[in-house]
Amino acid sequence: MLVVKKFGGSSVANPERIKRVARRVVEEQQRGNQVVVVVSAMGDTTDELIELMKQVTDNPSEREMDMLLSTGEQVSIALLAMAIRDLGVDVVSLTGAQVGIYTDDVHTKAKILDITTDRIGEELAQGRIVVVAGFQGVNSHNDITTLGRGGSDTTAVALAAALQADVCEIFTDVDGVYTTDPRVVPEASKLERISFDEMLELASLGAQVLHPRSVEVAKQYGIPLHVRTSFDHREGTIVEEAPDMENAPVVSGVAYDYNVVKIGLFDVPDQPGVAKKIFKALSAQNINVDMIIQSAMRNNMNDIGFTTTRDDLRKALQIIEEIREEVGFKSYTHDEDVAKVSIVGAGMISHPGVAADMFEALADEGINLEMITTSEIKVSCVIKRAETEKAVKALHKKFRLHDLEEAKKYGK
Amino acid sequence: MLVVKKFGGSSVANPERIKRVARRVVEEQQRGNQVVVVVSAMGDTTDELIELMKQVTDNPSEREMDMLLSTGEQVSIALLAMAIRDLGVDVVSLTGAQVGIYTDDVHTKAKILDITTDRIGEELAQGRIVVVAGFQGVNSHNDITTLGRGGSDTTAVALAAALQADVCEIFTDVDGVYTTDPRVVPEASKLERISFDEMLELASLGAQVLHPRSVEVAKQYGIPLHVRTSFDHREGTIVEEAPDMENAPVVSGVAYDYNVVKIGLFDVPDQPGVAKKIFKALSAQNINVDMIIQSAMRNNMNDIGFTTTRDDLRKALQIIEEIREEVGFKSYTHDEDVAKVSIVGAGMISHPGVAADMFEALADEGINLEMITTSEIKVSCVIKRAETEKAVKALHKKFRLHDLEEAKKYGK
Repeated sequence: MLVVKKFGGSSVANPERIKRVARRVVEEQQRGNQVVVVVSAMGDTTDELIELMKQVTDNPSEREMDMLLSTGEQVSIALLAMAIRDLGVDVVSLTGAQVGIYTDDVHTKAKILDITTDRIGEELAQGRIVVVAGFQGVNSHNDITTLGRGGSDTTAVALAAALQADVCEIFTDVDGVYTTDPRVVPEASKLERISFDEMLELASLGAQVLHPRSVEVAKQYGIPLHVRTSFDHREGTIVEEAPDMENAPVVSGVAYDYNVVKIGLFDVPDQPGVAKKIFKALSAQNINVDMIIQSAMRNNMNDIGFTTTRDDLRKALQIIEEIREEVGFKSYTHDEDVAKVSIVGAGMISHPGVAADMFEALADEGINLEMITTSEIKVSCVIKRAETEKAVKALHKKFRLHDLEEAKKYGK
Repeated sequence: MLVVKKFGGSSVANPERIKRVARRVVEEQQRGNQVVVVVSAMGDTTDELIELMKQVTDNPSEREMDMLLSTGEQVSIALLAMAIRDLGVDVVSLTGAQVGIYTDDVHTKAKILDITTDRIGEELAQGRIVVVAGFQGVNSHNDITTLGRGGSDTTAVALAAALQADVCEIFTDVDGVYTTDPRVVPEASKLERISFDEMLELASLGAQVLHPRSVEVAKQYGIPLHVRTSFDHREGTIVEEAPDMENAPVVSGVAYDYNVVKIGLFDVPDQPGVAKKIFKALSAQNINVDMIIQSAMRNNMNDIGFTTTRDDLRKALQIIEEIREEVGFKSYTHDEDVAKVSIVGAGMISHPGVAADMFEALADEGINLEMITTSEIKVSCVIKRAETEKAVKALHKKFRLHDLEEAKKYGK
């Protein structure tokens, strides 16, 4: 069996932890498996490098940022390889460029285009454990690129796909995927299994366990993920194509996201092509728009509201100001005092009353819904920021997620 | 004009110094020159990485050491490139592998075999300043190698040779090559010019300014070196093939070296091939033997003495013990309480009395000579360690090196 194991920054934060990871990796090989390990930079290394950088310039070249930040993972792979060899096992470390993780040219958030498996294949055939630097690749000019947030997860999943690995284990500081954030709802349950689609929604909705990009790649190539803790040997959560749907809860998780702001445009002329103009202008500047609602028409005028991330707010407002005359709306406003709560579940497709139950649970708590969007497997509502925790608790309770056996009975 | 500039670790030890180096490099370009900059790791980075490594293993793989340590220069080049771009100048940083600095497979002390200049040439043609990581290369398996001590100097000189640069400037924390160590003799004079051969002797004899390997490469390809300080704009010392010999002092420098130990073998049979056996056995284990003397024969028995470095002492004694019976010498001893003082000067070739003057100067101070070797341009003596500074001062005075105009008159 070929296993890809990914360890995040907190799992390799110091020499002691690096040695523990080494033991864990060697155990896997001793079970008769081939092992490829992907690691992130040690703990705070990336932050320290950024701190150093800020003392040199306020406006760094993105190419040079990648040159700088990719050293963090290179330090990790060298130290982990040393720790593994210290246990008497043959091992080799490889940078993204040495593996042949080819990406596009978008420095600091490159996408993987292709992975060459020759070198890893040769090393595995020699009986070696292969330790690969996460988060980094190389573009067609032989320049170092990095993959942006969650990049090491993506490296691991893409490598698992390229190597046709049997499983990809993502080691993290939590022991699996929970029905909601246990810091908000201590009774949250750990899910044994979850589908790629549900995980994708949860990941996109602010659950920090896996980066959505890595889940997308896993889904695309059908690589099962095992999300588990590096601190002990407990099983975590399996993310896979189609867990037994009959035996799954209708709602499998409640997510929340504070990284939301609401922008409202008032008295927009009700003419064809107006919405296109607005959202084309935003997407041309890479503003990520999430939810959009258009209110009922009054006097041939509409109100249009949408949400974007907190980081994009300033840029979005600039663009709105620039297009105001051309589009012809009268005024606009924005609201940072909001959050998004969502329920996710593959079973919702066959249980049409779920959204109504969600609205009821929130209404019972006196929570006002400012915007609503639905997809086949999720319902999201924008609410006042201060009511987020109350909403998450109410929804978790409504769908009985403190006890997964109970949750499975909901709606049946 | 194409200029290669090398800045050592202390010149880029912190963000302020990196910015100063950036300004200096940009000034060079503004004078209309093409500029390639080679940098070392920032200040203590390498020591910090080694400290981290020691917490992981006592016995690191040399391949992984190179993977680890090469990150130090990668951080420097990224930060320096950012600082240069902050001044509005187009710039690109390149690792050893990206340049195409090909080395042999000897990790931690690799030798440069070949340098590809395509990438640097393209970048220079675009009007960019090129910042190259010193100390590192890549072998034929695409594995990262490092060049060992003085490696960044060697990178700079080898790059200057490959690019047919007009000059290679080595910036360091001293402002040039001195007639002796100014910490020992405060009146030591800065040399304006010195020949490759003299510099090579001085470098090998313990003067820390340039690594001998880099001087060898400079001599081989006829690249003039300019050794100067990065702290101000003073001219330093030019190292070149043949400075005006007529106008040069006979003796140009006094060097000393504490990294010497003496080993003596007693009652060695006076038979052909005995010396060969001893020194072959030592060189087979990479023991560097410097001076060798053989005493007059008594009863068909000789005494043989030689020097090696302090680091090699233990290994050398082991080998001596192993070959004792085969070679048939009776006993051996070693002495760590020694040092080597040397005078160097291209003018010695045509001034045969120089060695005698050296012995006289030392004898006048009551210093006993334990071993002597000479080459065309140097004379070295092993003396008691405690007498080193006294010897250096006496020799510096004897050859009038406190005043180079006076020194030129010596022997004429």
